[in-house]
Amino acid sequence: MQALEERILKEGKNLGGGILKVDGFINHQVDPVLMDECGREFARRFKAIGATKVLTAEISGIAPAVTTALHLGLPVVYARKHKPITMPDQVYLTLSPSHTKGRMVELIISPEYLAGGERVLIIDDFLASGATIMGLVRLAQTAGANVVGIGALIEKRFEGGRKVLEPLGVPIESLACISSMEGDEILFESSRE
Amino acid sequence: MQALEERILKEGKNLGGGILKVDGFINHQVDPVLMDECGREFARRFKAIGATKVLTAEISGIAPAVTTALHLGLPVVYARKHKPITMPDQVYLTLSPSHTKGRMVELIISPEYLAGGERVLIIDDFLASGATIMGLVRLAQTAGANVVGIGALIEKRFEGGRKVLEPLGVPIESLACISSMEGDEILFESSRE
Repeated sequence: MQALEERILKEGKNLGGGILKVDGFINHQVDPVLMDECGREFARRFKAIGATKVLTAEISGIAPAVTTALHLGLPVVYARKHKPITMPDQVYLTLSPSHTKGRMVELIISPEYLAGGERVLIIDDFLASGATIMGLVRLAQTAGANVVGIGALIEKRFEGGRKVLEPLGVPIESLACISSMEGDEILFESSRE
Repeated sequence: MQALEERILKEGKNLGGGILKVDGFINHQVDPVLMDECGREFARRFKAIGATKVLTAEISGIAPAVTTALHLGLPVVYARKHKPITMPDQVYLTLSPSHTKGRMVELIISPEYLAGGERVLIIDDFLASGATIMGLVRLAQTAGANVVGIGALIEKRFEGGRKVLEPLGVPIESLACISSMEGDEILFESSRE
């Protein structure tokens, strides 16, 4: 998506080691107009898959998941990393390695809000190694739900996550797909829009 | 706001001890249409205060803050509870007691995204004791920014947070104001719309 790629080139920072800083418009400060455009684009790309629920992980997935769900007219569930006191004792829980924390984090969903037979569209900010998204896939499968699509604002193609997810056989869409972050550069794959 | 009050009566659960569970439409599963309506209503109530930025705290404040910011045409910053590796070493940090965790949590903002002279509208999911919002106020003040308004989806009037915030002398708006949660009941104050 051109608007997102242009924003990454203008304000994103390649911090080295494959780390892309987008704190100015996605991960700390959020540009709601851009997030709304991204949500509209995800809704356009996924409108035919018959999703019944959008699933994401706190924290940075929430903004794009909410705008996507708004344009699709669906509820969104965000997996919690800490079980709040309002959640029942029996939950769906999986462990996922955190890129930014250097350790495993929990991803927790209450069975109240993810039922067997639901058709789940997973939306997240990044598709890198695919570990977080695979954690969400495991939670959905444990609930007896079917993952029917996966969308990420930014894909770091060189980290291989797409290969991890492809065996699921569902459409995988990224709005900005980065092929290389060598040196200071940020290079995009040719857009597949 | 009638739609929010009706939803709380229909799906909210009074768990006792002043704890209101709204995990079905705000805190775990999110109804994006309702959040968009709440954002539009906040934008209407605060359109005259000349805010330049919306400020909230992760996690549950993000959805209403993003929709409010969208309707006001402003960027939104969410204070982080853990410093990500993309954040500079020098940050604004304050401690705030967490109602649901029973301990102090950090609220962290990068100076990159909150500048002196900014006019800050704080939006959060709950106004209870006011402790989290006061943490955001301290961060804004440390940055040299001015808090010009405070909005919460749900106010628990009986927890006294409004009295803590009133000395700031800025408009405080809640979209659903609960006066009492004795027994199983959830009683609202007469709407001030």
